[in-house]
Amino acid sequence: MKITLKSALLCIAALLTFTVQAKYLNETEQQHINDLKQTALQSDLAYQIEESLTTEVGARMIGTEGDKRAIAWAVDKMNTLGFDKVWTEEVGHYQWIRGDVEAKVLAPFPQPIKAIALGESVGTGEKGIQAEVVHFNTLADLQAAEIGSLTNKIAFVSYRMKRFKTGKGYGKAVGARVKGAAVAAEKGAIGFIMRSVGTDNNRTPHTGITRYKNGVTRIPAVALANPDADLLVNQFKREKKVEFYLKVTAMRNEVVAVRGANVIGEITGSEFPEQIVALGAHLDSWDVGTGAIDDGLGVSMVMAATAHIAKLPERPKRTIRVILFAGEEVGLLGAKQYIIDHKDNLKNHSIAAEWDFGLGKIYSMQSGVGEKAVPAIAELATYLESLGVAYNKGNKGRGQSDMGAVTDKGVPAMNFSPDGTTYFDIHHTENDTLDKVDAKDLQQNTAVYTVFAYFAAQVGVDFRK
Amino acid sequence: MKITLKSALLCIAALLTFTVQAKYLNETEQQHINDLKQTALQSDLAYQIEESLTTEVGARMIGTEGDKRAIAWAVDKMNTLGFDKVWTEEVGHYQWIRGDVEAKVLAPFPQPIKAIALGESVGTGEKGIQAEVVHFNTLADLQAAEIGSLTNKIAFVSYRMKRFKTGKGYGKAVGARVKGAAVAAEKGAIGFIMRSVGTDNNRTPHTGITRYKNGVTRIPAVALANPDADLLVNQFKREKKVEFYLKVTAMRNEVVAVRGANVIGEITGSEFPEQIVALGAHLDSWDVGTGAIDDGLGVSMVMAATAHIAKLPERPKRTIRVILFAGEEVGLLGAKQYIIDHKDNLKNHSIAAEWDFGLGKIYSMQSGVGEKAVPAIAELATYLESLGVAYNKGNKGRGQSDMGAVTDKGVPAMNFSPDGTTYFDIHHTENDTLDKVDAKDLQQNTAVYTVFAYFAAQVGVDFRK
Repeated sequence: MKITLKSALLCIAALLTFTVQAKYLNETEQQHINDLKQTALQSDLAYQIEESLTTEVGARMIGTEGDKRAIAWAVDKMNTLGFDKVWTEEVGHYQWIRGDVEAKVLAPFPQPIKAIALGESVGTGEKGIQAEVVHFNTLADLQAAEIGSLTNKIAFVSYRMKRFKTGKGYGKAVGARVKGAAVAAEKGAIGFIMRSVGTDNNRTPHTGITRYKNGVTRIPAVALANPDADLLVNQFKREKKVEFYLKVTAMRNEVVAVRGANVIGEITGSEFPEQIVALGAHLDSWDVGTGAIDDGLGVSMVMAATAHIAKLPERPKRTIRVILFAGEEVGLLGAKQYIIDHKDNLKNHSIAAEWDFGLGKIYSMQSGVGEKAVPAIAELATYLESLGVAYNKGNKGRGQSDMGAVTDKGVPAMNFSPDGTTYFDIHHTENDTLDKVDAKDLQQNTAVYTVFAYFAAQVGVDFRK
Repeated sequence: MKITLKSALLCIAALLTFTVQAKYLNETEQQHINDLKQTALQSDLAYQIEESLTTEVGARMIGTEGDKRAIAWAVDKMNTLGFDKVWTEEVGHYQWIRGDVEAKVLAPFPQPIKAIALGESVGTGEKGIQAEVVHFNTLADLQAAEIGSLTNKIAFVSYRMKRFKTGKGYGKAVGARVKGAAVAAEKGAIGFIMRSVGTDNNRTPHTGITRYKNGVTRIPAVALANPDADLLVNQFKREKKVEFYLKVTAMRNEVVAVRGANVIGEITGSEFPEQIVALGAHLDSWDVGTGAIDDGLGVSMVMAATAHIAKLPERPKRTIRVILFAGEEVGLLGAKQYIIDHKDNLKNHSIAAEWDFGLGKIYSMQSGVGEKAVPAIAELATYLESLGVAYNKGNKGRGQSDMGAVTDKGVPAMNFSPDGTTYFDIHHTENDTLDKVDAKDLQQNTAVYTVFAYFAAQVGVDFRK
C-alpha cells in the first residue's frame, strides 16, 4: 500500500478522532455503569430509606430529640447497608426553641392569621405586642424607609415569590427573610412580619433562618402563610389603619449549648483509599414536617447510591464518602465544622456533590473541575444522557448547600440541577412529608448519583483545578 | 287555493313543528337573556362580593362573632345591591366551641400529629387521653369489630377518599366521619381518630360534623391531616403496638343557646309577586379558612345574579328570592327553620336552586320539575349550552344542601353540577380561602345562575309536579 500525504493526514485525523472518542472507562467498567444505572432505576432502596427516616424519626432540627434519633438512625442505616466505616463528628450550636405564634388582625377587620416564627427569632414575651402595621411591597422599600419612621410599629413585607423551573425566584425573595427583621428594627419597628418565601397558597407558612445585626435590637420575626398575607394586603386596600396582635413564644438561649453531629460513612477505595469522592446531604431538618424532601431525599439518594456501588464484586478505586451534615438549616454548621476538622485533607477530596434541592427530576449537570478533567466529565455526561440529564459545559459548577462551602475551599465540584418548579410550595413547611416524594423521580435521581459516584471513584482522572 | 287533505295535513304538521320550536320567551326576553349572560361573563361583581365577605368577615360558624358580622354584612350588601326587600329570620342552636387539638404518636416512633376536632365533638379533659390505637381500613371494618374489643382504646379509620369529577368519593368517605365516633364508642373505644375526608395531601385536616348516638358514650373525635394518617399507617406496618396521646379542648354546651339567622333578600315580581324563584346558598361556614369556597362562592353567585337582573329596565314577572341559610354546616339548621317558617307558602315557591358545591365550572344541569314543564327546561338548556352546560334530561334533580331539604317538600328543583375534581382538597379546611377562587369560573357559574333565575322568573310556566 502506497502511503500518500493525504492518506497519512486521514490516518492522523482518524487517530485524533479516536482520542476524542476514547473511553475513560474500559468495557467492564462501562458494564458496571450500565448495571448500576438499571439497578438504581429498578430499586426501591432510596424510597425505603426515605420512608424509614420519615416514619421512624421525622423532624430533626439540631438540638432536638429528633436530631439525636436521626444521628443514631443514620449510623445504624449505614452499617446495615454495608458501608465499610461509619462514624460521627460533633457539631455544636446554641439552643433555639420555636414555640408558638398567635397572630391576628385586630382592625379594620378582625381575623386570625396563620404564621410561623422565622428560624432563631426572639419571642415577644407573654403579653405579645399590639401595634399598627406598615406595609412594604419589597425589602428594598423597607430599606428605603426613614430611620425612626417605624417606631413602635410592625413592618410587613408582602413580596410574592415567583415560580421558576430553576427555582431562581427563591434568591429574589429570601433577602426579606434573612435581613428584614434587622432592617425593620433599625427603623424602629418592634416586630417584623412577611409573606412566606414560597410559591404555594396553603395555610402552612414557611420558616427559615433570619439574621439579626450586632448593635440592633432583636425583634420578633414571623412569616405569614401566603393566603394570610394576601388577606392582609386586601385589608390594606381599604385604606384604613391596620392593627395587629402578635405573640411569639420562641426562645433563643445562646448560653445553652446543644450538640449535633456530621454522620460519615465510607466504602473504602480499592486502589487509592486516601482519595475521596464526597457525596453530601444534610441530616438535620427544620422542626416542621418530617424533613422528607429537605433533605430526606438527599440523605436517601446518597446512601442508596453508595449501597448500590457497595454491591459490585469489588470496591471502586477511590473511597466514596457519604457526609450527612449537621445543622445545615441554621447556618451550614456541619459544613463549617467539616472544613475545620478536615482542613489538611481537603486536598484529597477528589470531587464533591450534594443533593439539597427538592424533589424534581435532574435535567442538567455542570462540573466545576480543572480544565484537564473536562473531557472526562464530557464522557460522564454521555452515561447520564439516557437519564435525561443535559450537559451544561460551563464548568462553573459549585456544590449545593454544605458542599458549596466545601468546594469553595478548592475541592472540585459536580452540580446536578433538578426541576425546581414545585419545590418552594413545601420548602420549610409542615407539608414537607413523605407523600410529596415521587418514587419514579427518586429512582431516576438516585441513578444519576450512583453513576456519577462510581465514575468519579473509578476513573483515573485528577479533577483538581 | 284548493285545500286538499294533503295540504291540510302538511299545515297541521307545520303548526305542530311550530309548537315544538316555539320559544317560551319572546324576542325581548331572549335579548335580556343574552344581555344578562354577557353582563355576568364580563362583570367582576360576584368576585367583589366574595372578596368583601372573605376580607371583611372571614370565618362565620353559627354562634360566633364572625357569624354575627356575616349577617350584618349580608343585609348591608343586599341593600347596597338594590334588592327590594331584605330581612332576617332567626335560627337557634346550642353552643359548640372547637378548641384545640394536641395529638402525637408516643410509640413505636414518637411524632407530632396534625389533627382537628370533628364538628360538635366533645373534649378529652385537660389531661387528654393516652391509649393504644386499633387500626381499621374502613368504617365497615370498625362496625364489624366485637363489642368490648376496643375497651380503653382509640379507634383509627384510615379510609382514603377517592377523587372524582362528580365528587362522588365524598359520599363513600363521609360515613366514617358522621358515624365513626358513635360506632367506636359502642365497641368500648375512648377516642376516635380518622383520615380526613379529603383528597389533598396537605397538613390541614378536614373538619365536618360527627353525630353521636343516644345512649352511647360521647367520645372525642378528630380528623388527622392526610399525611399524618399516612404516617400512622406506616408506623402500623412495623407491627408494633401504637400508643397515642390525644387532647381535645372542644366544648359542647347544649344548655347555652346561640342565635344565627337566615338572611333573605328579594327583587319583587312585576306580575306574580307572590310566586317565588328561590336561589340559595349558606352564609355560615366552618370556623376554619375564610369560608371562601364553602359557601362564599354560593353567596356571591346568587347575590350577583339577582343584582344583575335587578338592573334590567323592569322586574321579571315572579319574585326572585335569595336565601342565605344559617347553620348549614352543623345540620341544615337554617333550611329546617325555613321549612317551618314558610310552611304555608312553600306551594308558592315556583322553583329552587342552591349553590353549595365548590369551585369548579358547571358542566351539567338537571331539573326536578313537573313533566309539563320539561319542554321549558329544554328551552332553558339551549340558553345555557354556550356556557358549556350539558342538559341531563333525567328530571330527577334535587336542590343542593339546604335547598335539598326545601325541594324534598315538593318545591320544584334545578340542580347545576360543577367539576368537583379539586373541591375536596380544601373542603372544611383552613385552606378554604380567597386565593382558591378562579375568577373566570366564577363569572361563568354566575352567568348560569343569572340566566336560570331570569328565565324561571319570567317564563309563564308552572314548574310544579
